[in-house]
Amino acid sequence: MKRIKVVVPVSSDMWNDSVKRLMDDYKDADTLIRVVNIAKGPESLECTYDEVMAEMFALQEVEKAPKEGFHGVIIYCSSDPGLRAAKEKLNIPVVGLGESSYHLASMLGSSFSVITVGPPDLVATQCRRVRDHLKVYALEHKCASVRSVAIPVMDLEKEKTKQEQRVFAESTKAIEEDNADTIVLGCGGMLGVAERVSKELAVPVIIPAIAALKMCESLIGMGLVQSKRCFGTPPAGKKRIM
Amino acid sequence: MKRIKVVVPVSSDMWNDSVKRLMDDYKDADTLIRVVNIAKGPESLECTYDEVMAEMFALQEVEKAPKEGFHGVIIYCSSDPGLRAAKEKLNIPVVGLGESSYHLASMLGSSFSVITVGPPDLVATQCRRVRDHLKVYALEHKCASVRSVAIPVMDLEKEKTKQEQRVFAESTKAIEEDNADTIVLGCGGMLGVAERVSKELAVPVIIPAIAALKMCESLIGMGLVQSKRCFGTPPAGKKRIM
Amino acid sequence: MKRIKVVVPVSSDMWNDSVKRLMDDYKDADTLIRVVNIAKGPESLECTYDEVMAEMFALQEVEKAPKEGFHGVIIYCSSDPGLRAAKEKLNIPVVGLGESSYHLASMLGSSFSVITVGPPDLVATQCRRVRDHLKVYALEHKCASVRSVAIPVMDLEKEKTKQEQRVFAESTKAIEEDNADTIVLGCGGMLGVAERVSKELAVPVIIPAIAALKMCESLIGMGLVQSKRCFGTPPAGKKRIM
Amino acid sequence: MKRIKVVVPVSSDMWNDSVKRLMDDYKDADTLIRVVNIAKGPESLECTYDEVMAEMFALQEVEKAPKEGFHGVIIYCSSDPGLRAAKEKLNIPVVGLGESSYHLASMLGSSFSVITVGPPDLVATQCRRVRDHLKVYALEHKCASVRSVAIPVMDLEKEKTKQEQRVFAESTKAIEEDNADTIVLGCGGMLGVAERVSKELAVPVIIPAIAALKMCESLIGMGLVQSKRCFGTPPAGKKRIM
Amino acid sequence: MKRIKVVVPVSSDMWNDSVKRLMDDYKDADTLIRVVNIAKGPESLECTYDEVMAEMFALQEVEKAPKEGFHGVIIYCSSDPGLRAAKEKLNIPVVGLGESSYHLASMLGSSFSVITVGPPDLVATQCRRVRDHLKVYALEHKCASVRSVAIPVMDLEKEKTKQEQRVFAESTKAIEEDNADTIVLGCGGMLGVAERVSKELAVPVIIPAIAALKMCESLIGMGLVQSKRCFGTPPAGKKRIM
Amino acid sequence: MKRIKVVVPVSSDMWNDSVKRLMDDYKDADTLIRVVNIAKGPESLECTYDEVMAEMFALQEVEKAPKEGFHGVIIYCSSDPGLRAAKEKLNIPVVGLGESSYHLASMLGSSFSVITVGPPDLVATQCRRVRDHLKVYALEHKCASVRSVAIPVMDLEKEKTKQEQRVFAESTKAIEEDNADTIVLGCGGMLGVAERVSKELAVPVIIPAIAALKMCESLIGMGLVQSKRCFGTPPAGKKRIM
Repeated sequence: MKRIKVVVPVSSDMWNDSVKRLMDDYKDADTLIRVVNIAKGPESLECTYDEVMAEMFALQEVEKAPKEGFHGVIIYCSSDPGLRAAKEKLNIPVVGLGESSYHLASMLGSSFSVITVGPPDLVATQCRRVRDHLKVYALEHKCASVRSVAIPVMDLEKEKTKQEQRVFAESTKAIEEDNADTIVLGCGGMLGVAERVSKELAVPVIIPAIAALKMCESLIGMGLVQSKRCFGTPPAGKKRIM
Repeated sequence: MKRIKVVVPVSSDMWNDSVKRLMDDYKDADTLIRVVNIAKGPESLECTYDEVMAEMFALQEVEKAPKEGFHGVIIYCSSDPGLRAAKEKLNIPVVGLGESSYHLASMLGSSFSVITVGPPDLVATQCRRVRDHLKVYALEHKCASVRSVAIPVMDLEKEKTKQEQRVFAESTKAIEEDNADTIVLGCGGMLGVAERVSKELAVPVIIPAIAALKMCESLIGMGLVQSKRCFGTPPAGKKRIM
Repeated sequence: MKRIKVVVPVSSDMWNDSVKRLMDDYKDADTLIRVVNIAKGPESLECTYDEVMAEMFALQEVEKAPKEGFHGVIIYCSSDPGLRAAKEKLNIPVVGLGESSYHLASMLGSSFSVITVGPPDLVATQCRRVRDHLKVYALEHKCASVRSVAIPVMDLEKEKTKQEQRVFAESTKAIEEDNADTIVLGCGGMLGVAERVSKELAVPVIIPAIAALKMCESLIGMGLVQSKRCFGTPPAGKKRIM
Repeated sequence: MKRIKVVVPVSSDMWNDSVKRLMDDYKDADTLIRVVNIAKGPESLECTYDEVMAEMFALQEVEKAPKEGFHGVIIYCSSDPGLRAAKEKLNIPVVGLGESSYHLASMLGSSFSVITVGPPDLVATQCRRVRDHLKVYALEHKCASVRSVAIPVMDLEKEKTKQEQRVFAESTKAIEEDNADTIVLGCGGMLGVAERVSKELAVPVIIPAIAALKMCESLIGMGLVQSKRCFGTPPAGKKRIM
Repeated sequence: MKRIKVVVPVSSDMWNDSVKRLMDDYKDADTLIRVVNIAKGPESLECTYDEVMAEMFALQEVEKAPKEGFHGVIIYCSSDPGLRAAKEKLNIPVVGLGESSYHLASMLGSSFSVITVGPPDLVATQCRRVRDHLKVYALEHKCASVRSVAIPVMDLEKEKTKQEQRVFAESTKAIEEDNADTIVLGCGGMLGVAERVSKELAVPVIIPAIAALKMCESLIGMGLVQSKRCFGTPPAGKKRIM
Repeated sequence: MKRIKVVVPVSSDMWNDSVKRLMDDYKDADTLIRVVNIAKGPESLECTYDEVMAEMFALQEVEKAPKEGFHGVIIYCSSDPGLRAAKEKLNIPVVGLGESSYHLASMLGSSFSVITVGPPDLVATQCRRVRDHLKVYALEHKCASVRSVAIPVMDLEKEKTKQEQRVFAESTKAIEEDNADTIVLGCGGMLGVAERVSKELAVPVIIPAIAALKMCESLIGMGLVQSKRCFGTPPAGKKRIM
């Protein structure tokens, strides 16, 4: 049995059910998924400021996982808030949507593009954020481009048609203008919009939730955990006022 | 059901059984493993020359997989002979031991070392070969060092004790001198030597066979295949004399 | 008049006075320094976990600066907690100790080493953290090495002699073994230990507090602020529960 | 006397005469050129699959060179099939068209573009192949772009006019849009199409055959051979079934 | 008191007054600026050839600074002629316009573009020169693009309107097409053209003179000088005929 | 006939004869070599300051070559003083010892080391200079290390035995400690010291004079010249006072 806790790092439970359903569709038979959101923090993460405002609360939820009997944790956001801190704190696998999907994309082709989301006036900031993460993972050189559908996270569900059209349009430009050969959806809230791209453009489209799920299951299956030499356990006995 | 064909690209069946056993230990419940070696080619791959001498034969074995009803293929060698050609030829996932293990290592820490094998007088050549592969995958910058146990592949089994000691010694140096935080075993023939390193040195040790198995299962589970835009199908109707 | 707010992102006021004195020694005549610590968070930052636990509180303190009449903000920690979020939120210059000192070092020589601090069993983690930051600033290739004096932050003051000796010893190794030509002290708590290195080893030693101070004063003097295209203002009117 | 064997790694002798004529036009007075193709393998190399299918046979032809009295070998294809294996096997210089032309281009300007060939539906794959080779030579960062005339190798001769026009058109785009300052023809079969580009666009155009010829003559003249530490001799006495 | 000598490395005094005025506008209260040009050399620097023809004379002027009582030197040209030689020769801070402005830009955003000048038929050469300098400073990867207003240096003053329009036009393209978030003016002669870009495009515009001034003042204030290990003093007692 | 002018950029004729003899030993039958030194400038180049003091004079000598009937020019110093300026000024091939030897080394192995010379107290400066040049050629990543024999250029001849021993000692360390597979002699004055290394250490040793000679002959033979798009001709009609 592989028990996985999925922490959605936003103060809204609007995604929980659809995340659960998506994960259940792709999980191994012996995997058990539990999805929780955080009680405090922003309702969506669309800038580094939002990340900072969410990650302490996400971390607190992540930390409880071992005692709750989970074998692995997924931080359900492509900006991987608190991921490296969580890797330090825990001795079970912690994976993020961004890190998993970029690594998977790196194996399926030579050059991937990330299609991200967010307010139209923050497109450049969103792209910088994705590149910040790619820099830390040392994978930026495999990224052909970052493009945005320019829809705020909170509008993704109600703008499903526009979202799907723009994912297709930006993916087409990524392939034809930027020479991408693989597409990564850059937000955990982009649900059900991959099919047209993968069919009509004939490139793999990485759905970050599933990439993270399979990576987490794989790590549990292999008995592997993040390097504790790289992500050493935070010193105990230290005053941390909260 | 996930049917996976494992092609051991050497003209010896000496590894088939232990590879099968190892894979069976780690596979998902619904995975079926079949291991075959190639009829022609070198008995082991210890230089680029050997790779060239093996990869056409490996490719011929790989090509048959779809018709044989397999859903995925693993090329069982850390030098990934014929991998990119196979990705072109097939429309089902093809994964290599090297590519899978380097990407996995890239996620578990910040800087991995590869412990490879081969004749003592070819250590520098082995290290260059590993770096050649890392260059193509654009992951060389995440590699702290390549070190060798300096034992020829054909002697790995009979020198098990020496092999284990040297894996431990070289891993220690990789961690302490080269600042590695993750160890990748660099040959599919290094079996049963990971435990002491992972226990005593407290770093993840990637066994390439298992990394490739989990990656192959994951791709089948996700319904993903290598980018055909990157790895386009070889033109048909062309004269290829063999 | 250049009014600068220095936010020490730890829940202890033990550093405030010495930081104030140091800054006052080096500031321009028309600069006014105010130093504050944060009310909550860890007492020192020695891992990414600590950073996450501090940066929301640091950000809250930083955010108040414009209304308080400040022209610039310094986040007083070499790990620059919350720096990029603060750059988004504010329209006045925000600088970090790490970012300022790495850029300054990049100009003074060809290859700098960072001498950091922290618990002896977390040396590898400290070095990874520094490298994480250098990666985001895209300056890692100019870093010859990261070395640690292996003294926890809270012991720096009482272990001043040992600290100074080890800074000298590690700087010597950085220069002789790693070919560094410039030394960056990697923690804002390393006070009064630079002189012997710069005198005896004849290389520049960057004291991060002073690097940040001069950068902040320069930006105010030039009328420049971080690119708001890169660091766009967080969307208003969004629910952020705290 | 410098005796050079030119191995055309395709199972067709259609190129032998024109290659011989071209080489004879540019060779030193004391150089003797012999051109041979391979008996088996594909008739042209337009994907990695073709490379694999050719390189064992190419290698077998290359291997005979020392006994035949040659002082150097040129593998006549820009994808350099079997080059690194041949460098291992032989103790005389072996050069490839791709490696020679990319290095030469690297010296003549700051940023070169490669104009390659192949079926129109495999353009992205051709470009990836060129980049794969550039990655192994660690020269990809000097490449402004890879562009294709989208003509299959077997049609190059009969489509000479279209070929020349497209070489000119793609070179123009490479210079104006991609900021290339040097053009490398990316296939040994692109014969007689360089002149218009070099005259009208005023940039050097590297004809790979000639780059390889001059590099091979130079190495023979200098008494240098590929590093045997890097390309160690394959272990003898090993079973290699063919 | 911070006494700074500004060496304009051209054989014309046409810039001296406006440079002096600009510097005086931004200098600290206790800074004293003296501007001199060189007696020999080209009237403007628009290619590497010009740089070579200027830098010996610039260096001779720079060398006199310590004896003249200066505490720091600014070489007033974005191509930083003789900068590294001057850093060797002197034991007081020497800064260049290019190096200072590229480092400052690196801190204010993620990706800067340089807008340079020069004859219309030498645009590609100008861009290569800027990239040459960025390569030496190991900052080229942070440069989104180099663009030119295509106006010769000697015409900058009389073509002020055209200059300003083109700076705006090229900056717009840099931001929209090349994803730059920060603009660096690439010539010390581009005076008074920054305002419209910074206002209308909402990105920082680095005026190199001011970047260099603040860097020079900062170094003097910090008591720091370029690493003499990196820039060792030229051996004395050597014959150097002039 | 290939007439090549070799400009030794030092104000001493002590090297002219031995350079001529060495070149004559390796040149093609139809090559004619003329060696000249410069009338002014330093007697040897051991820092960037010396380079600046030499390159204007070197350039003046180089410039005369076309009118003197030469087909190519070699700037005889591994620091390539004035090379890029000369490439701009001339329309015949100009090659430098450094650029040629680094590119050749890049082809013969995977990772080369440079063994340089100079005063013992300037070793770090020499190594930085070599790296500066490698950065401009964008080949630094292929350099395993730069090491020095720590002998001033003017003493090379009289310290021949010590020089040879140290070349051997440093080359051994480069291979064993730094993983170099190819050695580049880093100064045109290192004559007759390559043989022991190439014989006993079994790696190629690049003698820069011969690398440059063969590159220059090759370019003349191919009818190629440096890209004038990259190295545009300096504007005429400009005041350049000398």
